[in-house]
Amino acid sequence: MNHLHQAFSVRFTYNVFFTEQLFGHTNPLFGDFLKQQATDETRKKLLFVIDSGVVTAQPTLLADIKHYFAQDADFIEVIDDLVIIPGGEDAKNEPAFVEKIVDAVDRHGIDRHSYVAAIGGGSLLDLVGYAAAISHRGIRHIRIPTTVLSQNDSGVGVKNGVNYRGKKNFLGTFVPPVAVFNDSTFLTTLDDRDWRSGISEAVKVALIKDTQFFEEIEANAQALAARDAAAMQTLIHRCAQMHLDHIASGDPFEMGSSRPLDFGHWSAHKLEQLTNFEIRHGEAVAIGIALDTLYSQQLGWLTEAETNRVLTTLRTLGFSLYHPMLDANKSAGILKGLSEFREHLGGKLTIMLLKRIGLGVEVHEMDTELIRQAIATLRKYELSTTV
Amino acid sequence: MNHLHQAFSVRFTYNVFFTEQLFGHTNPLFGDFLKQQATDETRKKLLFVIDSGVVTAQPTLLADIKHYFAQDADFIEVIDDLVIIPGGEDAKNEPAFVEKIVDAVDRHGIDRHSYVAAIGGGSLLDLVGYAAAISHRGIRHIRIPTTVLSQNDSGVGVKNGVNYRGKKNFLGTFVPPVAVFNDSTFLTTLDDRDWRSGISEAVKVALIKDTQFFEEIEANAQALAARDAAAMQTLIHRCAQMHLDHIASGDPFEMGSSRPLDFGHWSAHKLEQLTNFEIRHGEAVAIGIALDTLYSQQLGWLTEAETNRVLTTLRTLGFSLYHPMLDANKSAGILKGLSEFREHLGGKLTIMLLKRIGLGVEVHEMDTELIRQAIATLRKYELSTTV
Ligand SMILES: NC(=O)c1ccc[n+]([C@@H]2O[C@H](COP(=O)([O-])OP(=O)(O)OC[C@H]3O[C@@H](n4cnc5c(N)ncnc54)[C@H](O)[C@@H]3O)[C@@H](O)[C@H]2O)c1
Ligand SMILES: NC(=O)c1ccc[n+]([C@@H]2O[C@H](COP(=O)([O-])OP(=O)(O)OC[C@H]3O[C@@H](n4cnc5c(N)ncnc54)[C@H](O)[C@@H]3O)[C@@H](O)[C@H]2O)c1
Ligand SMILES: [Zn+2]
Ligand SMILES: [Zn+2]
Repeated sequence: MNHLHQAFSVRFTYNVFFTEQLFGHTNPLFGDFLKQQATDETRKKLLFVIDSGVVTAQPTLLADIKHYFAQDADFIEVIDDLVIIPGGEDAKNEPAFVEKIVDAVDRHGIDRHSYVAAIGGGSLLDLVGYAAAISHRGIRHIRIPTTVLSQNDSGVGVKNGVNYRGKKNFLGTFVPPVAVFNDSTFLTTLDDRDWRSGISEAVKVALIKDTQFFEEIEANAQALAARDAAAMQTLIHRCAQMHLDHIASGDPFEMGSSRPLDFGHWSAHKLEQLTNFEIRHGEAVAIGIALDTLYSQQLGWLTEAETNRVLTTLRTLGFSLYHPMLDANKSAGILKGLSEFREHLGGKLTIMLLKRIGLGVEVHEMDTELIRQAIATLRKYELSTTV
Repeated sequence: MNHLHQAFSVRFTYNVFFTEQLFGHTNPLFGDFLKQQATDETRKKLLFVIDSGVVTAQPTLLADIKHYFAQDADFIEVIDDLVIIPGGEDAKNEPAFVEKIVDAVDRHGIDRHSYVAAIGGGSLLDLVGYAAAISHRGIRHIRIPTTVLSQNDSGVGVKNGVNYRGKKNFLGTFVPPVAVFNDSTFLTTLDDRDWRSGISEAVKVALIKDTQFFEEIEANAQALAARDAAAMQTLIHRCAQMHLDHIASGDPFEMGSSRPLDFGHWSAHKLEQLTNFEIRHGEAVAIGIALDTLYSQQLGWLTEAETNRVLTTLRTLGFSLYHPMLDANKSAGILKGLSEFREHLGGKLTIMLLKRIGLGVEVHEMDTELIRQAIATLRKYELSTTV
């Protein structure tokens, strides 16, 4: 057969830094990173895009950034015009925000060797990562995640995306950042829901991969719920590490059908949509974990005791484990999440369930009746544990 | 310093097949490719997006495609709705076409293991490649290039893109196709301009990399101009091979500043824009090559004899080597292409020039006065060689 064969590999590397007060004038970390990258004669530019929720919660942030780069920053040209975009899922729902960033890239002449730095929650990061990925076929993207979820999960990974006609993450790409700066100071102003929300991703990764990590979360559940900063740092560091390892050792751009880190997510994604994104991603994931944990027990994989440990840990962390939308349309609503999940991943349906705490196993079908039973159990459990 | 390090590689492979009558019912190539990919239980889908210019020029194409998949194609589900989009640069200028494809992906449930196949010129391929790359974070993309340029250059590479607010390729990504099918039959209906246009990319790659290939083109210039199909097949095969080798051995996603294959392109891109895309990309590239060849001679790198061989070959192929827009605004127009080129690439200005025929060398600045002289020489040369 007359053909030419092409084969090549592309290498990606980046660091995830842990710090406090990233823009404090005595913290050299961010500046040092930029200096190290400043290899040739060209002066690179840096465009900030910032989550409005962070700007409101941290009123000195904008001034701190300007001040940070005020002294002789001849290694970088920081664009004066700091682009501020509403945080939360709105950032991903409105196509005009993609254009707003792309237009700023154009207006300020940000090239492929310059940077777009995003400061914000997972939603804002997903939006900015996407806009940076498609501008000039990819501008260097720095992530400065400001929520628990984005510091331990979404912000350290390789995915970005926006919603399209209400469909979650319908548009997006796989593009790693050039650096991630996890600044614990940001977390202090999170409201309780957002503080808690990100913990469910850590519970998820622990349940499918690491018994000991689950036991730590279980032991620290009360401290975490009470906003213990040290317990949170430990959790974020460990979870980020697991996330990075998972990406590097597996299928970084998800070309196969397997997607273990989506444990609990088939129902979570649908629940977010069914509630018009009124519940947070992490809140939906907590419910999704509870549902698939119960399902795993019904299959005879998890013992009742193990199941209770999972549910109790999630409850102690402060999560609700039931939402009325689980029962909407006699569960046709949430069940539709299964086919949408398959469609988004492509290939055959692949769902992670729990063989035991710390060990996920994939299945390729789920029984509708068993899912309904699990939902009924969750409803009762929630009633019985709500004071 | 407290940080985590991430590093991984992603491997990409694909074949470029050469064939005739791809959708002839006795040609098993395309069907065999799809069958080989059909590994698991799921039935994959295939969405065609087709260049309207090809549909007009090859009136049996749509029926041929339907017929090709009519018999027991249980390994693939071909979406009945063949999406047809105006060919040429219009395809890349109108944002609604991206949406049209993304909406078809949504409507027909094309997932990440299904295919979007594009049949058309480089413009349509760039558009479809982009839409496929951003849908669901990347759907498998098959390219069926129908012009000389797309068969020997753009269609076998890893780039896609659309124009944004008139800016050429402002939005795009680097994503390889899963397969390319170069069907020589398509070339028979090209108009002379499009037949010729793609040859300039072969001249370009020969000039910077391969003396012998240039000599072949030089020897075959008249045959090529007279639409000799065999000479064209040889040229396309060799040029595609060089293009693939270049990508695999270099910097596939162009993370550095060097972009040797953009020889002649800094002025070409600008000229396309200045003429409102009235001249073809390849026509602009021929002028760009002539310009930078003269500039190389002015630097004392090329001899006058070598320079004449290049200009004569381009003229014999039928290219015009001058356009009035080169002189628009006392050349401020075309010179702006230099800064825009730097900006699009990022980093410092890097321009490929010719040390000799078959050897390109990069420089980091160009002299405005010398460019003006080269333009003046081109104007005179064009006048003296036009009958
Ligand atoms: N790309 C991925 O791999 C990936 C993985 C998981 C989740 N996600 C996405 O992440 C998004 C959720 O992100 P999230 O949970 O970080 O929430 P979020 O980004 O939606 O932010 C929630 C709210 O917190 C505010 N906020 C952010 N930082 C703050 C701070 N430091 N102080 C006060 N308020 C602050 C925001 O303005 C917003 O109102 C979802 O869209 C989800 O799909 C992406
Ligand atoms: N992605 C890359 O790496 C890359 C590289 C070089 C060029 N390009 C892009 O490719 C585009 C130019 O592509 P092109 O030169 O193939 O032209 P084109 O795609 O613009 O097509 C030119 C015309 O030919 C028609 N046509 C296509 N195939 C035909 C056929 N078989 N018979 C009759 N008519 C046919 C089209 O409808 C159109 O009217 C430019 O946008 C350029 O920027 C991309
Ligand atoms: Zn998640
Ligand atoms: Zn070109």
